[in-house]
Amino acid sequence: MKHSEYKKMRYAYGFEEIALVPGDITINPDQTDISLVIDRLSFPIPILASAMDGVVDVKFAIAMGKLGGLAVLNLEGLQTRYADPDKVLAEIADATPEKVTQSLQRVYSEPIKENLIGDRIKAIKDAGVVCAVSLTPANTKRLSPLAAEAGIDILVVQSTVTTARHVSKSYRGLIFSELVKQLPVPVIVGNCVSYSACRNLMETGIHGVLVGVGPGAACTTREVIGVGIPQATATMDCAAARDEYFRATGRYVPIITDGGFRNGGDLCKAFACGADAVMLGSVFAQTEEAPGRGNHWGMATPHEALPRGTRIRVEVKGSLEQTLFGPTSVTDGTQNLVGALRTSMGVCGARNIREMHQTEVVIAPSIKTEGKIFQLMQGLAR
Amino acid sequence: MKHSEYKKMRYAYGFEEIALVPGDITINPDQTDISLVIDRLSFPIPILASAMDGVVDVKFAIAMGKLGGLAVLNLEGLQTRYADPDKVLAEIADATPEKVTQSLQRVYSEPIKENLIGDRIKAIKDAGVVCAVSLTPANTKRLSPLAAEAGIDILVVQSTVTTARHVSKSYRGLIFSELVKQLPVPVIVGNCVSYSACRNLMETGIHGVLVGVGPGAACTTREVIGVGIPQATATMDCAAARDEYFRATGRYVPIITDGGFRNGGDLCKAFACGADAVMLGSVFAQTEEAPGRGNHWGMATPHEALPRGTRIRVEVKGSLEQTLFGPTSVTDGTQNLVGALRTSMGVCGARNIREMHQTEVVIAPSIKTEGKIFQLMQGLAR
Amino acid sequence: MKHSEYKKMRYAYGFEEIALVPGDITINPDQTDISLVIDRLSFPIPILASAMDGVVDVKFAIAMGKLGGLAVLNLEGLQTRYADPDKVLAEIADATPEKVTQSLQRVYSEPIKENLIGDRIKAIKDAGVVCAVSLTPANTKRLSPLAAEAGIDILVVQSTVTTARHVSKSYRGLIFSELVKQLPVPVIVGNCVSYSACRNLMETGIHGVLVGVGPGAACTTREVIGVGIPQATATMDCAAARDEYFRATGRYVPIITDGGFRNGGDLCKAFACGADAVMLGSVFAQTEEAPGRGNHWGMATPHEALPRGTRIRVEVKGSLEQTLFGPTSVTDGTQNLVGALRTSMGVCGARNIREMHQTEVVIAPSIKTEGKIFQLMQGLAR
Amino acid sequence: MKHSEYKKMRYAYGFEEIALVPGDITINPDQTDISLVIDRLSFPIPILASAMDGVVDVKFAIAMGKLGGLAVLNLEGLQTRYADPDKVLAEIADATPEKVTQSLQRVYSEPIKENLIGDRIKAIKDAGVVCAVSLTPANTKRLSPLAAEAGIDILVVQSTVTTARHVSKSYRGLIFSELVKQLPVPVIVGNCVSYSACRNLMETGIHGVLVGVGPGAACTTREVIGVGIPQATATMDCAAARDEYFRATGRYVPIITDGGFRNGGDLCKAFACGADAVMLGSVFAQTEEAPGRGNHWGMATPHEALPRGTRIRVEVKGSLEQTLFGPTSVTDGTQNLVGALRTSMGVCGARNIREMHQTEVVIAPSIKTEGKIFQLMQGLAR
Repeated sequence: MKHSEYKKMRYAYGFEEIALVPGDITINPDQTDISLVIDRLSFPIPILASAMDGVVDVKFAIAMGKLGGLAVLNLEGLQTRYADPDKVLAEIADATPEKVTQSLQRVYSEPIKENLIGDRIKAIKDAGVVCAVSLTPANTKRLSPLAAEAGIDILVVQSTVTTARHVSKSYRGLIFSELVKQLPVPVIVGNCVSYSACRNLMETGIHGVLVGVGPGAACTTREVIGVGIPQATATMDCAAARDEYFRATGRYVPIITDGGFRNGGDLCKAFACGADAVMLGSVFAQTEEAPGRGNHWGMATPHEALPRGTRIRVEVKGSLEQTLFGPTSVTDGTQNLVGALRTSMGVCGARNIREMHQTEVVIAPSIKTEGKIFQLMQGLAR
Repeated sequence: MKHSEYKKMRYAYGFEEIALVPGDITINPDQTDISLVIDRLSFPIPILASAMDGVVDVKFAIAMGKLGGLAVLNLEGLQTRYADPDKVLAEIADATPEKVTQSLQRVYSEPIKENLIGDRIKAIKDAGVVCAVSLTPANTKRLSPLAAEAGIDILVVQSTVTTARHVSKSYRGLIFSELVKQLPVPVIVGNCVSYSACRNLMETGIHGVLVGVGPGAACTTREVIGVGIPQATATMDCAAARDEYFRATGRYVPIITDGGFRNGGDLCKAFACGADAVMLGSVFAQTEEAPGRGNHWGMATPHEALPRGTRIRVEVKGSLEQTLFGPTSVTDGTQNLVGALRTSMGVCGARNIREMHQTEVVIAPSIKTEGKIFQLMQGLAR
Repeated sequence: MKHSEYKKMRYAYGFEEIALVPGDITINPDQTDISLVIDRLSFPIPILASAMDGVVDVKFAIAMGKLGGLAVLNLEGLQTRYADPDKVLAEIADATPEKVTQSLQRVYSEPIKENLIGDRIKAIKDAGVVCAVSLTPANTKRLSPLAAEAGIDILVVQSTVTTARHVSKSYRGLIFSELVKQLPVPVIVGNCVSYSACRNLMETGIHGVLVGVGPGAACTTREVIGVGIPQATATMDCAAARDEYFRATGRYVPIITDGGFRNGGDLCKAFACGADAVMLGSVFAQTEEAPGRGNHWGMATPHEALPRGTRIRVEVKGSLEQTLFGPTSVTDGTQNLVGALRTSMGVCGARNIREMHQTEVVIAPSIKTEGKIFQLMQGLAR
Repeated sequence: MKHSEYKKMRYAYGFEEIALVPGDITINPDQTDISLVIDRLSFPIPILASAMDGVVDVKFAIAMGKLGGLAVLNLEGLQTRYADPDKVLAEIADATPEKVTQSLQRVYSEPIKENLIGDRIKAIKDAGVVCAVSLTPANTKRLSPLAAEAGIDILVVQSTVTTARHVSKSYRGLIFSELVKQLPVPVIVGNCVSYSACRNLMETGIHGVLVGVGPGAACTTREVIGVGIPQATATMDCAAARDEYFRATGRYVPIITDGGFRNGGDLCKAFACGADAVMLGSVFAQTEEAPGRGNHWGMATPHEALPRGTRIRVEVKGSLEQTLFGPTSVTDGTQNLVGALRTSMGVCGARNIREMHQTEVVIAPSIKTEGKIFQLMQGLAR
């Protein structure tokens, strides 16, 4: 019998399949440094909020900035399609699960109003915090000058998968090397998941990379088009690209792991896998400050022909400050994310994020989930 | 302690265990070419409908052909046993789960009427679409001349497992090399799952191979006889046979992955694993055009002594056109399969199916299912 | 960081984790030979019924023998402790799950009546079928002469784990090489799971080996003492011992895989893993002929201080004949086991059991179970 | 396509993923020696009770000592914060799941009363049993002299992760090499999970190491900070450190696997993985003697800012004596732990714990759990 290996396949790991090994020395959490640098901007905490309409509006962006993190406002979402998005947000929150995708498709068919772009940006800047906004590659040439003029500090160019080179008949592809020269602010691009795609993006001169395709709670990309890489491996591969690019050029381009976090444990694991920062959606959708009223959805959900995401109902669990800094009586790891990160770094003996990248990681599927399902089942069966 | 390795075992992967890695370049979906060639016939879309009685009748075959795909009509099913199969189809749809296998065994004990073979084929041909029909190996010698005479364009010879050589006392085995010389139309044979069995079939001169044993939703072959290979590995092994046969002979024999698809993501993965086309049952059973009224069952289900399959109830979810081309508000990947394939190819940087075969694939068990089960459990426990 | 490997661990596979690959030729099922030879005895079908009190009594043993298989009567069970065991069997069937282990402990504290040993054996012999009985190692010296005198054809010496050498202060261990010389009938010994333990047993001169520790449906050995090897690997390791012992000595000692079968698929897999025969408990407990009234339990269940098993309720599903030979309308693989084996051998191209040992096996975890759980969950959540 | 391996990951196994292979000889359980030696103290059974407030109080410690084991009293828990802890224990038992963490945070904010330390220790000593108590590293310098003066026999210094070296600004780290010189009693330190951390601890001169981070039933360390190693691998790595330290120095420092035990099977596996003793929490919380009234919780649960654990409700199932020695009618492995260990050693052919360390272990995920979930689901769906 003859066997031919048609293609080599590597195993890709998710956060739920790995665990961190404590270090040989331990460090008091208050001695850890968790700051993040993107180009010339510095942030006390390495946590971003996703450019999702259920998570970030002007008010949330200001609150996040004041607490030391960074929220990204989506310039192609409800905030720039509606002068008063409140009614639309309420409608989405109230829609039944059966009708919600149709509702989303309808409300997102309203055109973007260019004047609202400036208004939203100015409202954030007026509060004295760093302002980051996102655009899709197809609209970046047209809308980024408006955003720059309105005073943004960071531009995020984001779609499900963004590569350094895009083949299209209908429009000349966006050239990132040109964009970074034209814009006066740092540019973060994503999403990508592989070593080579990440490295190619870094070589265009951009200032940060978003890592993650398909892992988010509100995302069904993998079900719809088969594409999607578990985040632990995606982060490691892109971290390798960053480190080798740094060794080759001396330029350090931070990578931001985007999506797929269920709790503080996952967040800590991302840093051990090589992330410089993390971007969270569903966890922030649970805060009182989020505009989604306990709901969130991805930006591929309202696609008119092939929606790739769902609205997820989450409960509103506490304030943004509590979520980031505690104190808390919640024991499932969804509050006091900063305390969790500092504690984890202390246990792993890491003084800063770069040292946290050195933490030993093991493969250890979470068998506890199975046990919990079994317990719940037994309870039901009684 | 001495250990002796009795047999080497390889790991065989299913679609749910793998994921596709985005490419280093991306391509606009409208730039992708997804056409399929079988012998001298060409099809705009590489999607076939299974020769299952709950999926394909004359009306469905015509609709599928007009939309650019290919439906296979089973010549040993209800359509050739009953002049008016409607009553029987209703009976199957109405049977309770406990009684349905008995009902199936009974209605399939009705003999095949040779005159109906010609009638069904002519009805399809009259509509101006390509006509493909299926026979089992045991009946091929007797019935294929009738089918050829009635004007078929493609003959599918199919059983659970079909090999180039069959040992039997009671009848002289079907010789495929003779069959392809006698018949004026291309012959597709299946099913097989291994490199060697696939290569042996190709060497008989046939024009296409069906890949897949045991993965279908309506199939219990693995429970009953222990046989069944997950589709990702089966497709890769047969793709290797196709490529090496092509290198050796210059003849390209397409392989068609048959069964085991839950959604568009699985379909996209099949092409990345090496498929030239896919054959779907349960997804098409959900269309308004399918004769099964929201039910389907495999052709091994009515076996009188050892039934190996069950009737699966599915819901009727939309039209065939919507299933193939959208638009849709469904986000689980069961509609707009063509749009999903083009989008996936775009994200993977593949201009055509042959380039899609080059896509990188990783092993990435779908942990999300476990998470969803857990969420459902918690909901129930509340 | 220094890592030291404390012990090497192999992966051990269960039937649910493997699948059979179809062969390059296929064979008509009616052309397959499935006969079994133990010493000088020959059996048309290679299937044994377990020495469990819910499965085998005199009536069942006769029925099984007439159908071509072999049932083993437990000489230390209820049949030899009670002249009329019917009342006790009814009591076990009626006990609540909470009380059943206590009931079992109580009824099994009744002493064995030596006169009943002869009575039961003679009743089976009078029906003209082969008579096999089982004893534990501790009682074999005392009771095997009685059994031999009563006319048994085969002696099975069985405990959870039986080795060629046992260290004990209180009684001189049973010496198998002496036993086989003293007894006029073939001796089957078990259970074991490893290459070396199996080979050591064969070297004592015994005539068959039972393979399996901990896999049975009614067994909790693994939960209680941590011991238990999945059956696919256990069978392969013992098959390797059998083949190497055969190469070294020319004597072929059949191995019988005992326990852990859920359906015909598992049974077929056992033969592909190297089994010469299989011994089933729970499947036969579902027959109308079984004394357990739809219940079965292992012989370690009534242990007075450390019970290692539970009573399993199964439904009575059909006659023994239907279970072995069909026909059936059941599609989950629990009926027509012989038909399933012949069909599987045909698909794998195996003319006899020795050729079936050559079948290619792949590792292919049954993801379908997860899918089925998910479907059930969704149904409940609606 | 270029792949760079960012970090090597080993697979870490839990008890539920492994199984023990029976030996080539077997031994009568009554012939096995399971005694444990810590420094100059010897114990008939190698089982400790965790320093958790729901498990150990003075009364429980006395009962455990009289039965031959060792219970550790937490000197920073309720017993030293409240002269009469009964009311507080009742309050915790009665709290709803939503409020219980807040209640715990509140009752543990009461300061430790130094006079109660002496009282509790003297009460245990007065009963004539060995007295072991635990302190956290931060309080060891201050409180260990009081404990020593009151007459303890063993000091346990324990926190989630304890290393030989701790970096802190606010207090000078505890130096274990100094502590062992100052104290007149053996010192056990933990917890750790890796070869190097364990070896570093041993080199300070301490007398025992606790192994385990994150596996306990009441522990959510892995969810909150991502840290936690499955116990089979953790035990093996620390056993390797112990053996190599012993080879290098001639000093044998026992390792005690702490937490993650569901049943006697897991306990037996720990010894096969290299443990010299085991420490159990949830199993003892189920005894009539435990102060938790069927509840237990970890010592990280009441943390004021980042609680890492939950209160687990367990049922009170029997006496401590029955849990340790049986007899029992329970078949899930939670009673007669000593009988289970002796039986397992007998089956594995191990005369003592050091021989049990040589037992062959295989990787064998417990597929039965999945099957049980499926059965429960089917029952519910009916």
